[in-house]
Amino acid sequence: MNSRKRRLARVTLVAGAVAAAALAVVAQERSFDQLYAPIQPPKSVDLGKVELGKKLFFDPRLSQSGFISCNSCHNLSMGGSDNLSTSIGHKWQKGPINAPTVLNSALNLAQFWDGRAADLKEQAGGPIANPGEMAFQHTLAVDVLQSIPAYAREFKLIYGKDKIDIDMVTDAIAEFEKTLVTPNSRFDQYLLGKKDALTKDELAGYKLFNESGCVACHNGPNLGGNSFQKMGIVEPYKGAGDGRAAVTGKDADRFSYKVPTLRNVELTYPYFHDGAAWTLAEAVDIMGRLQLGRKFTEQENAQIVAFLKTLTGEQPVFRLPILPPSNEKTLRPRPFD
Amino acid sequence: MNSRKRRLARVTLVAGAVAAAALAVVAQERSFDQLYAPIQPPKSVDLGKVELGKKLFFDPRLSQSGFISCNSCHNLSMGGSDNLSTSIGHKWQKGPINAPTVLNSALNLAQFWDGRAADLKEQAGGPIANPGEMAFQHTLAVDVLQSIPAYAREFKLIYGKDKIDIDMVTDAIAEFEKTLVTPNSRFDQYLLGKKDALTKDELAGYKLFNESGCVACHNGPNLGGNSFQKMGIVEPYKGAGDGRAAVTGKDADRFSYKVPTLRNVELTYPYFHDGAAWTLAEAVDIMGRLQLGRKFTEQENAQIVAFLKTLTGEQPVFRLPILPPSNEKTLRPRPFD
Repeated sequence: MNSRKRRLARVTLVAGAVAAAALAVVAQERSFDQLYAPIQPPKSVDLGKVELGKKLFFDPRLSQSGFISCNSCHNLSMGGSDNLSTSIGHKWQKGPINAPTVLNSALNLAQFWDGRAADLKEQAGGPIANPGEMAFQHTLAVDVLQSIPAYAREFKLIYGKDKIDIDMVTDAIAEFEKTLVTPNSRFDQYLLGKKDALTKDELAGYKLFNESGCVACHNGPNLGGNSFQKMGIVEPYKGAGDGRAAVTGKDADRFSYKVPTLRNVELTYPYFHDGAAWTLAEAVDIMGRLQLGRKFTEQENAQIVAFLKTLTGEQPVFRLPILPPSNEKTLRPRPFD
Repeated sequence: MNSRKRRLARVTLVAGAVAAAALAVVAQERSFDQLYAPIQPPKSVDLGKVELGKKLFFDPRLSQSGFISCNSCHNLSMGGSDNLSTSIGHKWQKGPINAPTVLNSALNLAQFWDGRAADLKEQAGGPIANPGEMAFQHTLAVDVLQSIPAYAREFKLIYGKDKIDIDMVTDAIAEFEKTLVTPNSRFDQYLLGKKDALTKDELAGYKLFNESGCVACHNGPNLGGNSFQKMGIVEPYKGAGDGRAAVTGKDADRFSYKVPTLRNVELTYPYFHDGAAWTLAEAVDIMGRLQLGRKFTEQENAQIVAFLKTLTGEQPVFRLPILPPSNEKTLRPRPFD
């Protein structure tokens, strides 16, 4: 096999069953639609947990400093992300990786770029105790909450127990996060039958997105989030990192990451696990070359970007939560220790 | 004059006209009521500016790092404060002073502890350009906003000009801040005629607050915020700082600070310009001894604290704003430069 054929073989390998199905129906363009699905509101949520979890999500007292909350890096004013290459943690530490959006994250097959958390509940405990992020301890975070009567009562109401534990904390945060969906994007309107929801350029971008193979990894309701793939298939990516191998221990999983959702991608810059690409044009160009072995023309690139911007859905709307105050028994924040 | 008389003379001096009036009516206890006033909603606001200012208040792109917004230190989930002794600024710098609450701040005679800003509009420009806080430059902040079409359009709609300037930015933020009032506290209900709004202990605390002289400085609708006073009248306060002298250049103004509002004081811990007192009991004890030469008994202290907690009003209720995204023309944040 020559180099070109090897590339193609590799692309085909990665694209897998979904891409194969997609390629089989390339003649019937509209059949690509079935590889996606509109974002749906969650079918069942526990509203008590949602309201409690919302407070916890915004409460910086889950950090040692009293300054960093979940919302600091998954800012719900900014697409559930911090719009920084890598996040800022306790004492302004520079994080090792880009903060993925929390929006629609319940749809992902696992959490974190390397998928080391099975679900949102498991994820929520990570940053609280990570010395480079919120730098706290689960036991201390629970002590803080337990000391605040309004929290103690709310946990008791919902979980039926006098003593709060970290499982309840992460369970409530995860329940709130389940509500962070963004339905009714123009792409979803299109999928649901409003055929004029996309402009001619956006439709051209959608066609390119499908036929050039982006869909191989970015499919399903979240246009991603449902598989791990190697970063740098055709050409290597600089600074690819360990990726999924940190979880599986398998050398084959090096440079592999959970495919990020493209939902609201207009809002969740910068892009990639290292946040190195600041614009959609740059991200599309790099993905085309490194993953598909294809250099998109300027026009093609612009059309794909136009399509990607149709993935911005309705952002979660809710009142800023008011947090119950600490008191004399509450462990005090230690921002400079 | 002996030492005791000197203390009393000094207290009387500081208490001034308001205290004199108060003392004159001490026999008619209820007459103290007229030294206060309920919090009123603003009589006139420009809703366009309010909505724009709300976005700006939550937008960390007004900082060099892209991580710190007005709401970082004046957190509207936490009484408009950060509940830290002194704030955390760019690169985790430790601030020199406690962040005052933004709630009801339009009622203050000036802004900042030393009153160096005449009003909210002037105040809003300070932290953006302060190297220890948001560490940005006004020109760059304006450039960021101008590059974002949705902001450019909103400024044009409201101010009628194609080019944004920093005056518009601070004007809109100030207009939003005017809405951050907290009406309908139980104390306000009491002032408005609901005589059973306060419990027996709270009323006893109110009586003590008046008759021991707290009212001399903490009066008016904001129970403070309307005069500068020396910290440490009867006894010196450790770490009193330059205070108002930094503005006036007068030696007599050393250790003087704007009297903080006691509205929502239950939420705005820790207390004093240095945030050294973490509990209301501690703050009341120190104020009694240093400002009034009076050691409150444990019961008196508890009654005053009970009264102070009746000053918690209805917190501002609004939807978390969604910020328009940056684009390829937007200056990128520089958190680690």
